[in-house]
Amino acid sequence: MERKKLHKDGPEFSRIVVGAWRWNIDTETVEKLIHTSLDAGMTTFDHADIYGDHGNEEIFGRVLKNNPSLRQRMELVTKCGIKFPSAHRPESWVKHYNTSKAHIVWSAENSLKMLGTDRVDLLLIHRPDPLLNPEEVAEAFSQLRQNGKVLHFGVSNFTPTQFEMLQSYLPFPLVTNQLEISITHHAPLFDGNVDVLMKHRVAPMAWSPLGGGKLVSETPHGLFAKGPHYQATDAQLSLAWLLRHPSSIFPVIGTTKPERVIESGKAVDIRLDLQDWFEMLKVVQGREMP
Amino acid sequence: MERKKLHKDGPEFSRIVVGAWRWNIDTETVEKLIHTSLDAGMTTFDHADIYGDHGNEEIFGRVLKNNPSLRQRMELVTKCGIKFPSAHRPESWVKHYNTSKAHIVWSAENSLKMLGTDRVDLLLIHRPDPLLNPEEVAEAFSQLRQNGKVLHFGVSNFTPTQFEMLQSYLPFPLVTNQLEISITHHAPLFDGNVDVLMKHRVAPMAWSPLGGGKLVSETPHGLFAKGPHYQATDAQLSLAWLLRHPSSIFPVIGTTKPERVIESGKAVDIRLDLQDWFEMLKVVQGREMP
Amino acid sequence: MERKKLHKDGPEFSRIVVGAWRWNIDTETVEKLIHTSLDAGMTTFDHADIYGDHGNEEIFGRVLKNNPSLRQRMELVTKCGIKFPSAHRPESWVKHYNTSKAHIVWSAENSLKMLGTDRVDLLLIHRPDPLLNPEEVAEAFSQLRQNGKVLHFGVSNFTPTQFEMLQSYLPFPLVTNQLEISITHHAPLFDGNVDVLMKHRVAPMAWSPLGGGKLVSETPHGLFAKGPHYQATDAQLSLAWLLRHPSSIFPVIGTTKPERVIESGKAVDIRLDLQDWFEMLKVVQGREMP
Repeated sequence: MERKKLHKDGPEFSRIVVGAWRWNIDTETVEKLIHTSLDAGMTTFDHADIYGDHGNEEIFGRVLKNNPSLRQRMELVTKCGIKFPSAHRPESWVKHYNTSKAHIVWSAENSLKMLGTDRVDLLLIHRPDPLLNPEEVAEAFSQLRQNGKVLHFGVSNFTPTQFEMLQSYLPFPLVTNQLEISITHHAPLFDGNVDVLMKHRVAPMAWSPLGGGKLVSETPHGLFAKGPHYQATDAQLSLAWLLRHPSSIFPVIGTTKPERVIESGKAVDIRLDLQDWFEMLKVVQGREMP
Repeated sequence: MERKKLHKDGPEFSRIVVGAWRWNIDTETVEKLIHTSLDAGMTTFDHADIYGDHGNEEIFGRVLKNNPSLRQRMELVTKCGIKFPSAHRPESWVKHYNTSKAHIVWSAENSLKMLGTDRVDLLLIHRPDPLLNPEEVAEAFSQLRQNGKVLHFGVSNFTPTQFEMLQSYLPFPLVTNQLEISITHHAPLFDGNVDVLMKHRVAPMAWSPLGGGKLVSETPHGLFAKGPHYQATDAQLSLAWLLRHPSSIFPVIGTTKPERVIESGKAVDIRLDLQDWFEMLKVVQGREMP
Repeated sequence: MERKKLHKDGPEFSRIVVGAWRWNIDTETVEKLIHTSLDAGMTTFDHADIYGDHGNEEIFGRVLKNNPSLRQRMELVTKCGIKFPSAHRPESWVKHYNTSKAHIVWSAENSLKMLGTDRVDLLLIHRPDPLLNPEEVAEAFSQLRQNGKVLHFGVSNFTPTQFEMLQSYLPFPLVTNQLEISITHHAPLFDGNVDVLMKHRVAPMAWSPLGGGKLVSETPHGLFAKGPHYQATDAQLSLAWLLRHPSSIFPVIGTTKPERVIESGKAVDIRLDLQDWFEMLKVVQGREMP
């Protein structure tokens, strides 16, 4: 599995990142998913404090506690900043964001506890907070970095101006912006979102890289005519389409089935021909390029 | 009343700015409004050459001439660049903008004459002029600055790219962009307009901060459920909502009633709870954050 | 005819540029169009590899070969990067873009061969390619520059973020972005596209400067009331409207009639009054400025 840095001073990740978003399942299956991923070279796992109603980090952490050698074979990403009413967060009575220094530090430290680790490789602000105070965020990031609890920092779902505004307050680079990108949700490749990351020499991560399930493996009649040529499913072609982009997109897959993890991993071996890339875009857009 | 600088090298203003937009009224009432504002700590007054069909600066100026000690207790903002057909501007036969060096200098000097003062603290280009020549604007600003007639410069209703383009031609910072911002017109907080000001360490001023009158004091059943908790009117909560933003928004109120000036001034004493801020946004948006 | 540089380190062009887009016509007419243009001071000719289904550069080149002294009296612009199915490009089976190093270099060298010249003054990437690899483009441009085959580089139809992203990878300035701009398609003057060029001190070129033929010479009742005052056709007024913009727009006219070339050239002698400029905008917008 190809590995690459998100930024020259950022972490090195596997090109396919394994998302734990849906892993509010039994510990045994999570353990199997982790082993399947690592065996196929997918060493980077994507979490958030809120996934599984604040429970998925803890399930994952149980596997790490039972297998202490696993931690050093993987990179961990988590997120903070979204708060919503939940039995596990009784202080919240309306969905809101909190990017105060106190909350970022508390949330990161709580994620370490849940994940059963002493550090995460990357912490993301989950959504652009209209009340984000960049000086407070800079203080929180600097403190977490200095004490080794978080190695790198980034954002998610930020617009180009939000990214550049926050970056201007930080003494070190944001190493990614995790955006919704897929062949069916390709606007970020055209509307400036990915341009600004390329300008900053930062690689995007892509959530819902299969269009939220629209691009499945078993489409009866493959959406993309070149499937047989590449011996690939629509899902694999869709991932290969993202991987072909010069910005070095890191797709974050989200499945609870080990066989789907393996299938996705194989997408990195597909090198799409230039014209096939444009033909696929034409299929989903319903028109050719101008 | 809290006071704050618009930029580290910019002027210090009262957090609530008093707008003279509607003050085409009798001199006595204007005098009363000025005293009421100053007594409540609102020392900054916002003008434009065109307010009251080019008449409001002169009415305000009459009060200053009758009360020579007032000038040193206040900061004055005015604007230039809009021209429209009017008996007071017989040379205009179609609404247009003029940001030539000659017009900016003439307009600023005319404002000084009308206001009965030797200087204004801040001069704004009123609207983005498609024919704005940034080199001419830089010359006009530099000349007015050098001879002490205008202490600081800014813009109004500029987009982020217009702001950064003009800034790139100036040897000193634009200290504000006065935009329409209110809880009902909150797009500038999300679409990059305010981000770019934060990136440049510049505070926005907000015109129509009460949504052009949509957020009045006497809504029979308060729009915002937490009104009684804060002992505040909808209007006060709406101003407090703006004041809570980390960009340090300076709302420009526009009323002809002294009691409304006092009511608005009290908004600076309200510190909205984080969740109340998001709850208020949810009320006006009709949906919660993503 | 006024001449001007696109950028302080860029080429100097005639303010009206003559486009060869429609010149898939007989060599004699092209020769006549070239002489007519040069005689009227319009020395800059705009090509693309694909114009006339990859044939127009060659027709133009035949004239140059028959008149060896012509080349030193003119500046040549061409473009690359668009590929579409054509008998002349049998390798293409779907419309796509190619901005690989190999293709840019090959296409530029092929344009030299077709045009019968040893250099072009300006090469543009014809459209923003979603697969554009800025490091490859930088390599291609640097190589073509070093061996003297292309003197300057620019882009066409790029958004502001695409422009700034590519610029950030180049050791020399992009000297233009050729955009669709006309009085009927004036959005680029307001939406940031032209601002960003002004910020970079780069002049725009304008394709379809007559609105794709909507603004013709012989409108029975002139669209613009001031036509008689300026003794000008709608077409001339429309070009004068562009020329009045402070960004120094270079309109690229596209006609096959020598008399239209001459008519267009005369537009540079019209200096529109400020209010006339806004009145014309009001006519096409159907409303006055805010």
